[in-house]
Formats: sequence, C-alpha cells, structure tokens
Amino acid sequence: MPARLIDGFATTDALAEVFSDEAVAGAMLRFEIALARAQARLGMIPQAAAEAIGKLDRIGAAGLAWQARESATLVIPFLRVLKSRLDPAAARYVHWGSTSQDVLDTALVLLLRAARPILESDRERLERALRALSDKHAGSLMQARTLLQPALATTFGYKVAGWYGELHRSWRRLAKAFDEALQLQFGGACGTLASYGDRGPELAAVVAAELELPPPAGPWHAHRDCLAALVANCGIYAGGLAKIARDIALLMQSEIGEVAERGGGSSTMPHKRNPAASVVALAAAARLPGLVAAFLAAMPQEHERAAGGWQSEWPTVAGAIQATGSTLAAVADAIDGLTVDSARMRANLGGVPTDLGAAEIFRRRLLEESE
Amino acid sequence: MPARLIDGFATTDALAEVFSDEAVAGAMLRFEIALARAQARLGMIPQAAAEAIGKLDRIGAAGLAWQARESATLVIPFLRVLKSRLDPAAARYVHWGSTSQDVLDTALVLLLRAARPILESDRERLERALRALSDKHAGSLMQARTLLQPALATTFGYKVAGWYGELHRSWRRLAKAFDEALQLQFGGACGTLASYGDRGPELAAVVAAELELPPPAGPWHAHRDCLAALVANCGIYAGGLAKIARDIALLMQSEIGEVAERGGGSSTMPHKRNPAASVVALAAAARLPGLVAAFLAAMPQEHERAAGGWQSEWPTVAGAIQATGSTLAAVADAIDGLTVDSARMRANLGGVPTDLGAAEIFRRRLLEESE
Amino acid sequence: MPARLIDGFATTDALAEVFSDEAVAGAMLRFEIALARAQARLGMIPQAAAEAIGKLDRIGAAGLAWQARESATLVIPFLRVLKSRLDPAAARYVHWGSTSQDVLDTALVLLLRAARPILESDRERLERALRALSDKHAGSLMQARTLLQPALATTFGYKVAGWYGELHRSWRRLAKAFDEALQLQFGGACGTLASYGDRGPELAAVVAAELELPPPAGPWHAHRDCLAALVANCGIYAGGLAKIARDIALLMQSEIGEVAERGGGSSTMPHKRNPAASVVALAAAARLPGLVAAFLAAMPQEHERAAGGWQSEWPTVAGAIQATGSTLAAVADAIDGLTVDSARMRANLGGVPTDLGAAEIFRRRLLEESE
Amino acid sequence: MPARLIDGFATTDALAEVFSDEAVAGAMLRFEIALARAQARLGMIPQAAAEAIGKLDRIGAAGLAWQARESATLVIPFLRVLKSRLDPAAARYVHWGSTSQDVLDTALVLLLRAARPILESDRERLERALRALSDKHAGSLMQARTLLQPALATTFGYKVAGWYGELHRSWRRLAKAFDEALQLQFGGACGTLASYGDRGPELAAVVAAELELPPPAGPWHAHRDCLAALVANCGIYAGGLAKIARDIALLMQSEIGEVAERGGGSSTMPHKRNPAASVVALAAAARLPGLVAAFLAAMPQEHERAAGGWQSEWPTVAGAIQATGSTLAAVADAIDGLTVDSARMRANLGGVPTDLGAAEIFRRRLLEESE
Repeated sequence: MPARLIDGFATTDALAEVFSDEAVAGAMLRFEIALARAQARLGMIPQAAAEAIGKLDRIGAAGLAWQARESATLVIPFLRVLKSRLDPAAARYVHWGSTSQDVLDTALVLLLRAARPILESDRERLERALRALSDKHAGSLMQARTLLQPALATTFGYKVAGWYGELHRSWRRLAKAFDEALQLQFGGACGTLASYGDRGPELAAVVAAELELPPPAGPWHAHRDCLAALVANCGIYAGGLAKIARDIALLMQSEIGEVAERGGGSSTMPHKRNPAASVVALAAAARLPGLVAAFLAAMPQEHERAAGGWQSEWPTVAGAIQATGSTLAAVADAIDGLTVDSARMRANLGGVPTDLGAAEIFRRRLLEESE
Repeated sequence: MPARLIDGFATTDALAEVFSDEAVAGAMLRFEIALARAQARLGMIPQAAAEAIGKLDRIGAAGLAWQARESATLVIPFLRVLKSRLDPAAARYVHWGSTSQDVLDTALVLLLRAARPILESDRERLERALRALSDKHAGSLMQARTLLQPALATTFGYKVAGWYGELHRSWRRLAKAFDEALQLQFGGACGTLASYGDRGPELAAVVAAELELPPPAGPWHAHRDCLAALVANCGIYAGGLAKIARDIALLMQSEIGEVAERGGGSSTMPHKRNPAASVVALAAAARLPGLVAAFLAAMPQEHERAAGGWQSEWPTVAGAIQATGSTLAAVADAIDGLTVDSARMRANLGGVPTDLGAAEIFRRRLLEESE
Repeated sequence: MPARLIDGFATTDALAEVFSDEAVAGAMLRFEIALARAQARLGMIPQAAAEAIGKLDRIGAAGLAWQARESATLVIPFLRVLKSRLDPAAARYVHWGSTSQDVLDTALVLLLRAARPILESDRERLERALRALSDKHAGSLMQARTLLQPALATTFGYKVAGWYGELHRSWRRLAKAFDEALQLQFGGACGTLASYGDRGPELAAVVAAELELPPPAGPWHAHRDCLAALVANCGIYAGGLAKIARDIALLMQSEIGEVAERGGGSSTMPHKRNPAASVVALAAAARLPGLVAAFLAAMPQEHERAAGGWQSEWPTVAGAIQATGSTLAAVADAIDGLTVDSARMRANLGGVPTDLGAAEIFRRRLLEESE
Repeated sequence: MPARLIDGFATTDALAEVFSDEAVAGAMLRFEIALARAQARLGMIPQAAAEAIGKLDRIGAAGLAWQARESATLVIPFLRVLKSRLDPAAARYVHWGSTSQDVLDTALVLLLRAARPILESDRERLERALRALSDKHAGSLMQARTLLQPALATTFGYKVAGWYGELHRSWRRLAKAFDEALQLQFGGACGTLASYGDRGPELAAVVAAELELPPPAGPWHAHRDCLAALVANCGIYAGGLAKIARDIALLMQSEIGEVAERGGGSSTMPHKRNPAASVVALAAAARLPGLVAAFLAAMPQEHERAAGGWQSEWPTVAGAIQATGSTLAAVADAIDGLTVDSARMRANLGGVPTDLGAAEIFRRRLLEESE
C-alpha cells in the first residue's frame, strides 16, 4: 500500500489504493479488454484475439510514467507492454481503432466509480451520526456566536442540523455529478470513431455494456464540464465538512470546552488533547479550492484534444476525490467520537436571554427536508 | 454608469449596472421595506411606520463604504442614513428584529435575480446561433486537430455541436444553481429569529412573498453551499465558453484562416483583424477559477456568522456573475459575426482521409438531447 | 469617489481613487504626452504637435469600456477621443509608432506607483505600532496555543514580534517586487520598436525620463514575471497580515478576552463588541490567493502579445493591490486601537509552568534583525 | 521507485524519489539524530543515547500515514517506531524537548535542499541551450504574432532571448527564495525552546550545524512567508516555462511549421508528430496556480501552531516543487531537441516589412544583463 507520507492528510489508505499504480494500470487494461470483447462480439476482430487480450493481467507500472513523457501519453508505453505479452496475431488487435484519450478517460471513470462507494459509506455514517446528535441535543442550550463573539442563545441540536442540512444538499449535488461523470469515453482519433465506419455508435454501446457503464451519449474529448462539475462539487462538499471541523476545533478550545474529540495526543505534551480529526479534516479540505481552480483553468481545451489542459487533469481529479474523502472520513470520525458537555454549554451562556425563537422548527425542517 | 476602466473586460455595462452602488443600496432598502410591510401586516409594527419606511428611496451611497469598515458591516451606516430620513416614530421600527446578514444576503439575492435575465438573454442568442451554425455546416469538412496537430477529418457542424452541447449542459446546471440560491435570508441575530417569539417562520414567509422569493426553508447564515454552487457553475459555464473562444482564436490564425470574427482592429496596424471578441471572452473567463477558489476557501465559516469568510463573499459572487456574463456576451458576439471559410477548411484538410464515421450521428444527438 | 458598495472590503477609498476611471484615463494620457514630448525632443514629430498633445486633460471615460470590447483594447476608443480633441495637424502624431500595450502597461505601472506610498504609509504606521506593542508586553505572560489548545507559556511581546518579523520580511520582498515592476513598457507593434528605425532605445530612454521611470531594460510584452512577483508578494504579505487578524479575533473571543479592538458595533445587539477591523482584514485578504492564481494562470502568453491572458491582468493586479492595502489598513487600525488585558492573559495561563526559555532572546532578534 | 501513474506529468522520477516515503522518513530521522548528537555534545543527554539513536536507519513507512490521522501528526507514530528500535535507556532521549513541528518542518527543508540541485541542473541545461539557440538565430527573420495574428517582423533569436530573460529573472528570485527557506525549524512546544532553559539558542545552533543548515534566526512555527515565497516563485518560474511551451506548440502547428520537437508519437496515428514535451510542460505547469493559492490561503495560521493550515502544507510544497521540476525538465527537453525551420519562418513572413528596429539590441541586452 502506498503510504505517501509527503501527502499528509490528502488521502486515506482506501482511496490511495483506488488510485494506486496497480489500479490505474488495471483500469486501463479493463478498457482494452472490454474493447476487444466488444469488437469480437461484433465480428470486428477475431474471437481468439479478444480471448488472448482478455487473459492479460497484472500489468506492471515500472517505467511507464517515465516513458509516458516521451509521447505525452501513458498509453503508448502501456500498449508496448501489452503487445509484448501477446503473440503477434493478437497484438495487432489490441486498442484497435481507439485512441489514447478513450483509454485514459474511461480508466479515470472506472477509478472514480471505485472511489464512490468509499465516500458513500463514510457519508452514511456521518449523516446518521449527525441526525442522532441533533436529536439528542435538541434541548441543549448554548451560546450562538457571530464574528466569534457571543450573540444570543441557540441549541446544539439546531447547530448540528445546520451542519447536516448543508452536507445533505451538497452530497445530493455531488451524487448527481458522479452520475453525470461516470460515462464511457469513446471517440477514436478525433471524436468521430472513423475507424469503425458506420458501426461506431453500435460498438460504443457494447463497450459501455461490457464496462457496466450507462449507454454513452457521445464522446466528450474536449468538453470537460461533467468532470468539472464533479470536482467543483467535491470542493463544495468539502467546504461544508470543513465548516464542521472548524466549529468543533473552536468549541473545543479549553476556554470554551463545549465539545471534545476522542484522541488527539501530542508528541511533547502528553496531557494535551488536540482536535486531531478536525485538524486532519481542515488540512485535507484546504486542498480543494486550488484543485477546483486548476480544473477550471484547464477547461478551454484546444480543438479536438487539448495540448496540456487535458493532460493536466488526472492528478487534479484524483486529488480532489482523495482530499474530499479524507476530509469526510475525518469529520465522520470526529462526530463519532464527539463528547458534548451540555452543562458547560449552559454555563457559557451566562445571563444571555434564552429565547430560542424558531430554533426547533428550523432544526426539524432541516432534518426532515433531507430525509 | 460606472465605466470601470480598470476592470477591463471583467463585466459588461448591463451587469455593472446591476451591481452599481445605486442598485446595491436599492436592494438593501427593498429588504427593509419588505420587512416593515410584512411586520405591519402581521401587526408587529404600526402600519404608519411601514408606510413611512416604504416611502424611502434614493439612498445615497456616499461615505457608506468607508463607514462600513468601522463595524465590519455596511448595514450600520446604511441604517443610520435610513433613520436620519425618518421621523423617530418610524425610525425605531426600521430593521426591527433583523440582523445585518438578513439585509446583505437578501440584497445579494435580489441583485443576482436581476442579473439572471441578462445572462439568459445572451444565452438564448448564443444557443440559437450555435444550432443554426451547426446545421449550416453539417457537411463542411475540416481538419480535426489534436494536441494542436492535424488528426483526421471532422465537420465544422460537429465541432460547433460539441460547443453547444457543453454549454447546454452547463447552463442547465447553472440555472438550477440560480433556482437554489435565490432564496430569502432571514434568521435574525443568530438564526433563530428569536426577536419574533414563535412568529418568526410566519414572518419569514410574508417577507419572502413581499420580495417575490420562494417560501424560505430556513436561514443559511453560515451555510453557503447554494451560493457556492452558483459561483462554481459560473466557473464551469465560463470554461465552456472560453473553449469556444480559444478554438475561434486558433482557427482564425492567418496561417489557418478557417473562420473570422467581424471587427477587431489594431491601434498600430490598421490592416490587422484580431479575434477581438474571443480575446475579450478569454480575458473575462480567466477571472473565474480564482473567484471560485476564493469562494470555496471562505466556506468554513465560524459558528453562526463568520469572522471574515462571509464578509469576503460579495465581490467574489458579483465578480463571478459579471465575468461570466462578459464572457457570454463576447462569445455570443463572436458567433453572431462569425465568417466561416469552408473552402479553406477543405483545402487545409489536404490529403487526409475524409471518412467521417459517426460525426453526423453524434452531431444530431448533441443538438437533440438538449432541445 | 467610487463607493463600490458591492466590493465590500476589497479596497479602501484612497486605493479606489488610485484606480478610478479618471486616474486610469489620466495615466494613459500621461504616457501619450510623455511619448509626444520625447519624440518632439528627438525631432521625430513637430514641437507644436507635442505641445498640443501636452495640453490635453480631463479625458472622460464615458463609453470607453463598452467601446473597448469591439477591438479588445481600450486604446482604440481612447485615441479616438484624444484625436477628436486635437486639430488634424497634431492628431496624426498622437501615439505615433506606439502600440496599445505600451500605453496600457505603462499606465498600469503609473497607477501602481501611485498606490505604493499609500501602502507604505500604513506599513510604517503598523510596524511602528507593532514594535512598541512588543516592547511594552515583553514581560506579559500568556498562554501559547497550538492546534487551538493550550501549550506552554509565552509572552505577548514575543507573539507580536513574530507578527512583526513576518511582515517585515514580506514587505521587503514586496518592496523589491515594486522596484522591479515599475518600469516603462515600450516596444511598439511587436517589441522591436520598428517604427523608429535605430532610434527606438534612445526614444525609450527619453520617454522613461519624462515619466520619471528608471531607464528601461527592454520591452516585456509577453513576459509578465515582474508583475507576477508583485501580485504574488501582495498575496504573501496579506497572508501575514491575515494571520495577525485571525489571532486577534481568536484572542478577543469573550471566553478568552485577552485583547480587544476599539469599535465594532452590531446592528442587532448594541452590547456586542466585534473584532471589526480583523474581520475586514480577513475578508480583504481572502481575495488574494485567487487573484494570485489568476495572474499565474495567465502567464503562458502567446507569442509577442497574448490573446486573452494579457487582457485579463488589469483587474487582477488592481484587485491584488487594493485588497492588500485594505487588509493592511485594517490591521493597522486593529493594532492602533488594541487593548491588551495582561491580567486576563496571566489568569488564563492558570497552572501552566511559566518557563519562557528563549522567548525574550528570539523576540529581540526578530525586532533587531529587521530594523 | 514510485511510478505514480495517476500523477501524470506532475513530477519526474528524480523528484518523486526526493519525496518518497523512504526519503521522508529518512529526513525525519536525520533531524532526530542531529538533535541527539547536538544534545550529547552539549551534555544534555548521555553520549551513549546519542550514539544509539545515530545508528538507527531504514525506518519503514508502513502504517505511518494511517496512524498519523489519530493525532494529526506523523511524528507520534514515527517516534513509536524509533523507540521500539532502541533500548529504554536511549529511547527516552529521542526527540527530547522537541516538538512535532520541529521534525516535520526541518524534514521538509532537508527534502527541499535535496530537490534543489535537480532543478538547478535542468535550469543550467536549459539556459545554456537557450543562449545558444538565440545566438544561432539572431538573424532568422520571422513573423511576430500578436493576439495570434501576424504583426511585424522579428527574429527567432530575439524571441528566444525573451524566453531566456524571463527565466533568468525568475530563477534568480526562486534561488533567493530557496536560500531564505532552507533554514532549521527549532522552537519546541510553542516556539520558546522552554525545555532547554537558557540553552535553547545554543542548542539550535549546534543542531543546525549538524544538518549543515545556516545558523537559525529563530522559530517560524506560525510564520510561513519563506515557504510561501518559495512556492510562489515556483509558480512564477513555471509560468515562464509554460510560455515557452505554449509558443513552441503554436509554432509547431502544421500550418505554421516553424519549429518541431523531436519525438512525440501518437497511439492512433503513427504519422503524427506531437509537441509532446511542450504538452508535458503545459500539463505540469497547470498545477502551479492552484498550489500557490492553496499555500497562500493557509497562511493565516492560528496562534503558535495552526489547526489545519500548517498540516495542509506538505503536499502543496512538494507538489509545487515537483510540478515545477517536471515543467522545467520538459521544456529543457523540448529546447534540446528543437528543430528550427528558418526558411519556413522567412516564407511565413510573406510581404511583411522586415525592418527589425531594435530587435538585436534588445536581444543582446537580454542575454548580457543576465550573464
């Protein structure tokens, strides 16, 4: 497993695995196998070739990154490895009529599909915990704070419902962006599938079915809006998560002491209890704005395949997903282990009037509208 | 009209007007009037006070920006002006039970609502022109280009349909983001509407109706995901527009000469014909990634009202809308005046095989699926 | 004076004035006058023409922004106005042999030169106040806090010296970037000054002298590193200022209460005392990262003059300077009016050991090394 | 060697090695060894403990990233490993009196020092090649192009000198930023070195000497301007490199055909010759603006150690250095293998007047002033 110490809290073990060299090479191979199978099914290439290609596995990544620089595409050295593992009769049918971008975009889509349930699982854990926490503390009075100064009274339950509501809305958008982005890329050299005469769209449909992807609308070589929406919605979702982390870190200040995370030791001061999960979340979330900006800035891609913009996307997209997943896991951990000191909350309120207005009405609305 | 020379192509006259000082002060006033009227209707304040408040108009902006710095909110000096224009009996009911953020967020929403049809109008003009252009050139063969090098043949009609498809999808997302963002902010000092006892939600509904905004779900003081989605989708939409502008500027290079914009003179070389509208579009679109990043980075807002993050949003949101509108207007102008040299396109193809594969199928699909 | 309400705390009155329409048009005119005078001095154009041009003033900005879109340059409509104000004999010598970018880049440089002393004045005020504050509180013990949790003891004087040291270093870099960026742009149509035969460099030197700019090294049409360094160093400097603002806002939390800003009222809760200047500073500083990213992303400018990247720069550069100046003014105000409660600091330390180690040594070093 | 396929062109093999898990753990260990040796030399810990610590090597990274999340610091699990490898008598002296940030910041500095000569070597190769190329083509007339349209004549030698001049200036700034950033971090729990009584500064000097770092000015726990300047100058330098890559990719368009890179095959179209190195450079450089923004946005770090901002820095800094190095290596490769077709340049000029004005004067000045 790639430990990636330098990446700090930018990923989790599970998500690092999703984007590991082995997984990347595996996803690229999966496209080539699906293509060959589909072509054999449609009688475009010999069945035997598709079978030979279908038996390939465990493509090593050694040297590929370096060789990719020569041609500005990972696919050329990758195909070299595949072909070296096939007899000439099959080798000529690998990748037949396809183009680098078909492999690379579809591989990315397959990796994103693998990442999605990891995020989904933490999301469910977090939403469940937030709902329970909000219900439990529907009556826990606390100081509301504006501009970091005491305002009037509110409840911790309402505060948590606010966190929940934002996350719920933002996940809904993110899930829709996943739906839109998880589609086959298949356009051939310039988006026309010219190698396949008039059978391109038929072949595309079979390749998509092989990969269990939805029927493709068409190629999106130079039109990156669906990926952009995915990355941007990661940024928005992580922003909502980071707001929770910031609130927790602030509430956990010893002078306030209204909540506490489990864990969080120090290398110097053993007595210290740090908002460790919140800090991890804030550190991970801090990556998103720059990644979103990088993706957007690369969108004006030249003609039918960009000279630079497209090739810049992989680490941006993978980085955004991983940092979002890392933020999410950390906030879920923080909420799971959160101790709430409602007596301290009450005490910190002091003489502030305790009229709660519509707090409970709004709290319920936030939980209900997003059930 | 603010000429804003230093802002270059970051806005248009129409959009600069939407966010002018007069418009901002007007939108703030509109909130205060709606609030007073709603309160009078519900018997919370005297009818006479609401009437007096409702007669206020033409609030000058002079000095307000400077005074706003003292309290980190524009609302305090603004209310000072309002109150100075009312007799004491009415003055005490201005802004009653409300908070700065209610005014400022709702004013922003009203400005965004005013900006929307300006964008919508250019969008319709552009989409109509793109559809017509695509149909007209469904059979215009041209060089497809990948990595800025000749690839195989495609048609200009398919290329234009690709532009259109991306814009159509991205506008759909942006329109949805507008729908979600255009909502009343009304939460009082800390989101509970405590000043109104148990009548807060009722009052909120009447204020929203006064402003012709949808019934409000609840306050969103520290939860900025809806605005974030609006800004991010501006970024994605502008990215699609900038892709068109870049393609045009490249196709218009004299050595390629396949399309030409109308206009575009030079201050030194009268013979020169520049891709002026595309350049304006690219310059305007270049603002978006940084603005989106700024908005996202400000999302982890402290507690019930942020200390800095929220206060940073206005120029970001207004800047994003204006730059998007400027990009859109410029691309619409470019397409409106575009001359296409299909003979040159054909000639530039040279000996490249002219098999078009599924170009026409994909072209039609792009136009149809987004009708 | 442009009030720019929508810009929030993104600028100050003084800096908004520096970049006002009047100032922009004035700076452009100043270039044209200097050019004409230099050309007359070298006998390139008639003295009478230079005199007529030199008498131009008060060029109105009305309509210029809109007309600039037609040709993607403000200079064409601007010259139209100038020429309409001159008799034909002089009109033909306006802007003679020059190009749009010469005017626009040099005008920007003149505006930046005007902005510099405004920043410098606040910087001096702030540094002086920080040094005094640090000296005064060299012995004020307080809680050091790491990860928002209590660590060991430190002194407020040392903390302030840390603020000071960072600002001092960052200003030094920013001042150097100003020195490098404040240079004439003069290259003619494509950077060769071809219109002037072999007298281009000589003319450039005289134009620079007219404008009291240093002797120019050469044109920098498509090489924007000096401006990039200026914008980036604004970002770094604002980052250091925002750190101070964040610390103050945190220390001013009522539960901590170790410092307090003067001022900072609330529109709802008259008793409230907000960290208003810190909030203004944080809001202004939040603009910088995105502006720096925008400038950097625009640096790969095509050939001898970019198609979009260059034209995007004005609002980025002006925005960066203004937001930096706004942050700086706010932090200077915060420090000027800061009340320090050293008894509370001592009390908050509680039983923490009060060994201060090298705090005082480091404090003095920070103040001394940057005297 | 980490192949990092998903990272695309974001790094090179050599730089990926510099930031590998092994290298990170090695740099952390190197700090701990230097600390122990310095402490033994000053009689603070037993010589035998320092010797035992000094013999540690090959610390595995397995599991460390995951465990780091528990406490928001890599140092706690790292120390656990170290201690498990020492007998108790020595184990208690590891990291004595130090803090997480001392290890992590200093380790980062050591990694940056290791990366520097890799960049320096490519820089020298590139600058040498650019000077030679400029001299060789001092007389090669070509079309200057503004807004992607033909302007007047220039020379390829002058164009190359413009590239060179920008890079030379930007490297000078970057080198200075390296000088400033490569310094020991040593402040103990909160920047006072309180564990060492009055001997902290003395110990700091010896630790620095052990690591061959310059004498330290003082701790910079929450003051990140030197790293910010490093990252920002990476962004500026990469911007200058990307300008070259963009120009090459544009000049290499088949319709222009004035230069050609060596290499650059296609997976579909064997006849195609892509601007592969330029594409790699543009893809790598596209990472920088977002990384710079991320670093700047994290600068307002809370009190004596940030809760999130600091912890976000490692992947930002390492990413910036690696992407810059990747851009640089690619541009150096592009220039090394560049074929210039000066006949085509001349032909593309057509009837444009060939007055070169001061092109040669400026060219020489650019090369000379930066010798």
